[in-house]
Amino acid sequence: MSSQPSESHTPGPPLPGMFARYTDLVRQGLTAAVPDSDLSDLNLPIQYHLGWTDKDGNLAASAASQGKALRPTLCMFACEALEGDLTQALSAAASIELVHNFSLIHDDIQDQDLERRHQSTVWALWGQPKALVAGDALQSVGDLSMLRSAQLGVPPETVMRVSRILTGAYLEMVEGQCQDLGFESRTAITTDDYLHMIACKTGALIRSSVEIGAVLATDDPAVANSFAKFGSYLGRAFQIRDDYLGVWGDENATGKSTDNDIRRRKKSFPAVFALERASGAARDDLLRIYSQEELDDCDVERVMAIMDELGASRYAEQLTQQSAQQATRALENVELPPWAREEVDQLIDFLANRQF
Amino acid sequence: MSSQPSESHTPGPPLPGMFARYTDLVRQGLTAAVPDSDLSDLNLPIQYHLGWTDKDGNLAASAASQGKALRPTLCMFACEALEGDLTQALSAAASIELVHNFSLIHDDIQDQDLERRHQSTVWALWGQPKALVAGDALQSVGDLSMLRSAQLGVPPETVMRVSRILTGAYLEMVEGQCQDLGFESRTAITTDDYLHMIACKTGALIRSSVEIGAVLATDDPAVANSFAKFGSYLGRAFQIRDDYLGVWGDENATGKSTDNDIRRRKKSFPAVFALERASGAARDDLLRIYSQEELDDCDVERVMAIMDELGASRYAEQLTQQSAQQATRALENVELPPWAREEVDQLIDFLANRQF
Repeated sequence: MSSQPSESHTPGPPLPGMFARYTDLVRQGLTAAVPDSDLSDLNLPIQYHLGWTDKDGNLAASAASQGKALRPTLCMFACEALEGDLTQALSAAASIELVHNFSLIHDDIQDQDLERRHQSTVWALWGQPKALVAGDALQSVGDLSMLRSAQLGVPPETVMRVSRILTGAYLEMVEGQCQDLGFESRTAITTDDYLHMIACKTGALIRSSVEIGAVLATDDPAVANSFAKFGSYLGRAFQIRDDYLGVWGDENATGKSTDNDIRRRKKSFPAVFALERASGAARDDLLRIYSQEELDDCDVERVMAIMDELGASRYAEQLTQQSAQQATRALENVELPPWAREEVDQLIDFLANRQF
Repeated sequence: MSSQPSESHTPGPPLPGMFARYTDLVRQGLTAAVPDSDLSDLNLPIQYHLGWTDKDGNLAASAASQGKALRPTLCMFACEALEGDLTQALSAAASIELVHNFSLIHDDIQDQDLERRHQSTVWALWGQPKALVAGDALQSVGDLSMLRSAQLGVPPETVMRVSRILTGAYLEMVEGQCQDLGFESRTAITTDDYLHMIACKTGALIRSSVEIGAVLATDDPAVANSFAKFGSYLGRAFQIRDDYLGVWGDENATGKSTDNDIRRRKKSFPAVFALERASGAARDDLLRIYSQEELDDCDVERVMAIMDELGASRYAEQLTQQSAQQATRALENVELPPWAREEVDQLIDFLANRQF
């Protein structure tokens, strides 16, 4: 599979410094949230999924399988940028990361995915029934962590408010998963359908991360609202970039097989765009290929060739840049210290242009 | 399968009046909690599961498939018995019922059950992936309903407290599901293991229903604690009776096939008791039968004969009565109006001796 837009040869922006800055705090919040021994034999699948142990319960040698912790980092950043007390955001940030991880465990069952972050998925190791309850348990652990914010000094009204924001967001998230499921059997999906689906499936939780961080720092609803908007556009940029990397990314950087999204007929942005724009023979080929149960190398190459002809990668990049600009504009009227403004720019640049 | 202890020929106690008294309020709380159109195509599976519509979305002709609404009834009763404001308990009671129903949707996936309450299960109609997200959505809808208690005038501190009680309870519930999964591959399970499992899987949510109703009515921790204990014993009596009916119940009354629990090698109380107590040839037979993938009529009859020899039904009834007495004692020192005391007795009698 050789189709590679030239852009992917550049190294891309580095992970912004805020990720390293919050690592310890995020870990502290998560450690406080996840009970060490109370969950009987659900502990192991949960700690394994979080990247803390291997499948036999031995402590993980590296943090490589723990992911970037994007959502708690966004929460902490929003709180700090508005000069809030970071220690009050610990439980909330952990809660968001746990809810995200619960959704991944269930997602992997839904999609029958055998691997995530270079290792076997929970259901692949422990079976579907246990993976199902491990996900349910993690959601509850996440909810409890949010409520524990009260013990960190967050006023009860605010705890309820952030609980409502998070719960509302994960309700949107499951709606998005449901829409995504519906896409599997359809070929007539517009870019608008797609944007609505990702706004729910990915966008809602990313938006809520930023909004919750802001609400913990300020009582000003206009500011919280601007941060929520910022989060929505960030989420959109993040997901379209994710879909881009799923087709044109560098396997070594992303850790995901490059042609996997096409081979699995995933209705990610490039596929939706191609199905919407193709005409004539290209359209016939796409419809034929996407109606097959299995795709061979030749099918995958044909799909990539059609995407190239239609300029799908360029269009994906344009849409990402547009979302990045909207994210920038969402915070224009919010007063921020210079360091925070600079980090906002770094963050947007990273999410929109990252190679991993 | 003819083994029937004589007790099952009596009609059993009627459904206490409190169930009918709260029906409208419970329905009102549920209707406010479950959005009518916001969940895109998750609405139908959810409303169908709640017994509100048939699988095509037509309004259900009868309330037969809606179940007894035990948990919200318990919540309402505890609140009213302590002279609390019932309208403040609406959202909380609905929340508990929704969390219970979310767990049933996931349970049916786990157990691969095709029917519940005389109709097809959600996963059987819409497939596992959609049933999985429908369950997740229902949990979120339940969480949001609990938080909505604030709009009914419940103080924020109390909303957080009842949220914590419910979330803690469903965490216990999923732990119980996990223990129950573990039982499937084991034959060495003691009565204590079993009691611990049902205390989590069934007991925690029933206990929390009663406790939440009490907390909404009183600030006295000793009273709330007594109600929580009362709920624990009620839950134990309820589940052991359920297991009894799963083997010796009248199919027409329970709506469940009588030999189903044995045929599916379910480690319900009678099976656990038999496996724990049997010796000699009976023990060998049980171990052989419970190691088979499928049981024929002859196996089921042999298991029932062994249960009869060991007096499993009598022992199940003793254990139920013991739990019923403990439930009564738990409320002995709580001051209750005479009507409530009378209804406590009716409730205990019903749960411990019901035929359906």
